[in-house]
Amino acid sequence: MIGFNNGKYEQLENINIPITSLSINRGYGAFEFFQIINGKPFYGERHLARLKNTLKELRIFTEFENELPQIIDNSILKNKLNDCYIKIFVLPHSADNVANYSGSLYVFPTEMPVYDDALYKNGGSLLLRNYQRDMPLAKSTSYLFGQFMQNDCFETNAIEVLYYNGTTIQETVRGNIFIVRNGFVHTPFNNVLKGITRSIVIDILKENSYQFTEKEITIEELFAADEVFITSTTKNVMPIVEIHKHTIVNGNPGEMTQQIMREFQKVKELYNLS
Amino acid sequence: MIGFNNGKYEQLENINIPITSLSINRGYGAFEFFQIINGKPFYGERHLARLKNTLKELRIFTEFENELPQIIDNSILKNKLNDCYIKIFVLPHSADNVANYSGSLYVFPTEMPVYDDALYKNGGSLLLRNYQRDMPLAKSTSYLFGQFMQNDCFETNAIEVLYYNGTTIQETVRGNIFIVRNGFVHTPFNNVLKGITRSIVIDILKENSYQFTEKEITIEELFAADEVFITSTTKNVMPIVEIHKHTIVNGNPGEMTQQIMREFQKVKELYNLS
Repeated sequence: MIGFNNGKYEQLENINIPITSLSINRGYGAFEFFQIINGKPFYGERHLARLKNTLKELRIFTEFENELPQIIDNSILKNKLNDCYIKIFVLPHSADNVANYSGSLYVFPTEMPVYDDALYKNGGSLLLRNYQRDMPLAKSTSYLFGQFMQNDCFETNAIEVLYYNGTTIQETVRGNIFIVRNGFVHTPFNNVLKGITRSIVIDILKENSYQFTEKEITIEELFAADEVFITSTTKNVMPIVEIHKHTIVNGNPGEMTQQIMREFQKVKELYNLS
Repeated sequence: MIGFNNGKYEQLENINIPITSLSINRGYGAFEFFQIINGKPFYGERHLARLKNTLKELRIFTEFENELPQIIDNSILKNKLNDCYIKIFVLPHSADNVANYSGSLYVFPTEMPVYDDALYKNGGSLLLRNYQRDMPLAKSTSYLFGQFMQNDCFETNAIEVLYYNGTTIQETVRGNIFIVRNGFVHTPFNNVLKGITRSIVIDILKENSYQFTEKEITIEELFAADEVFITSTTKNVMPIVEIHKHTIVNGNPGEMTQQIMREFQKVKELYNLS
């Protein structure tokens, strides 16, 4: 596989960063991640807009910012990949200018695990942890706690950890959460990274005249929900039927969740045909 | 300069890590850092004990754990350096085993900025931020927020950011804090990384029969303190005379702080002669 190494296209296994890099020592860097469908970035403009926002939030710049769409296209073409995922990092190697970090740009294809069909049919489970991500509006490389929690997920067969602040829920380690209650769909909006899959689902809800609001969701509202689902680039729309040993209603994916899953699948299929 | 690259001694500029490393993508890694004085690690055993604790906390192992003292000695000898700093990273490159990450070991010398004498004579200032470090008992590479705050420090001429949880103070981005009040010396002990300089200062306090306790310190106690100082591997013992525009007493380093600074300097000088 071939990746972009801050100016050159190289074999991915030859792309390295110096051990002295600030991005290693301080876990400081911008991250973006999206799917390639039929050779095209799925909602690439939204991912690029979010990356630009992350760079602004973290005060990192890359000299290649304006060339990013072309670099992404080249990275796809050179690998002759129609269906894969792309990771982008912008990593500062030095702390010389803390008001405006000079970042090196890395773009490369990656494979991702495919989730079991049974999870979409039967629903998955979440663990709850009291935690607030640092600088949640930036998609950074800072995931220490989330990565550490992967073992708890593994041991309890949970698909993700859901963060709450003691009162309200925010987001999962790598995705967003939605609840359905009394016919209304809700998702948190404060102190969360607003995922691109989240934004596509919101488009679907609006286009299909669902009753939808972004609002704070308490733990009590979560446990009293009629339906729960999560969204992420790799998981798409996934029903959740258990949270911290608490079963959501009868433990089956809800009707509205299944409708939204079908609508989301249609968006992907249309993209594939376009 | 020569460093240890998980099994080989190599020129530092040739030591790299793969862009696909988990340690980059998830900001996940163990970190240790100490001073070499007269060719010997200053309190090297305590730093190694802390590194072992960090590895345990983060569930990372290195096949070189038992050889670490020899690897550190070799890294000093091969560089013919009598006085420098050493950085150690143990970085997992894959998430294959989240219950026991296989980490690669990196050991290399580094130079550090020397702080202006005026800071020790006149005292420095701190900024306050409401923040709790992730997994504070581990010295990890997770410093996103602290690194981001370096710009606020730069703009306000502050030496460090002090973290508090809304009620009590914890630690600075890269060090520990002590206050003196009514003849007693106090330092926080909950949810802080217990620095090696902190431990040496505690030894000094006990040996010299200071009245000392580890305890929770509220913001009000901090502002009402007679003296404040911080400790870190690079800053040693540094007096603090201003916190978030609030001046500590008359804005001069306190008498007990100066005594402790002298005692700490003696410890370093004795180490240099030994």
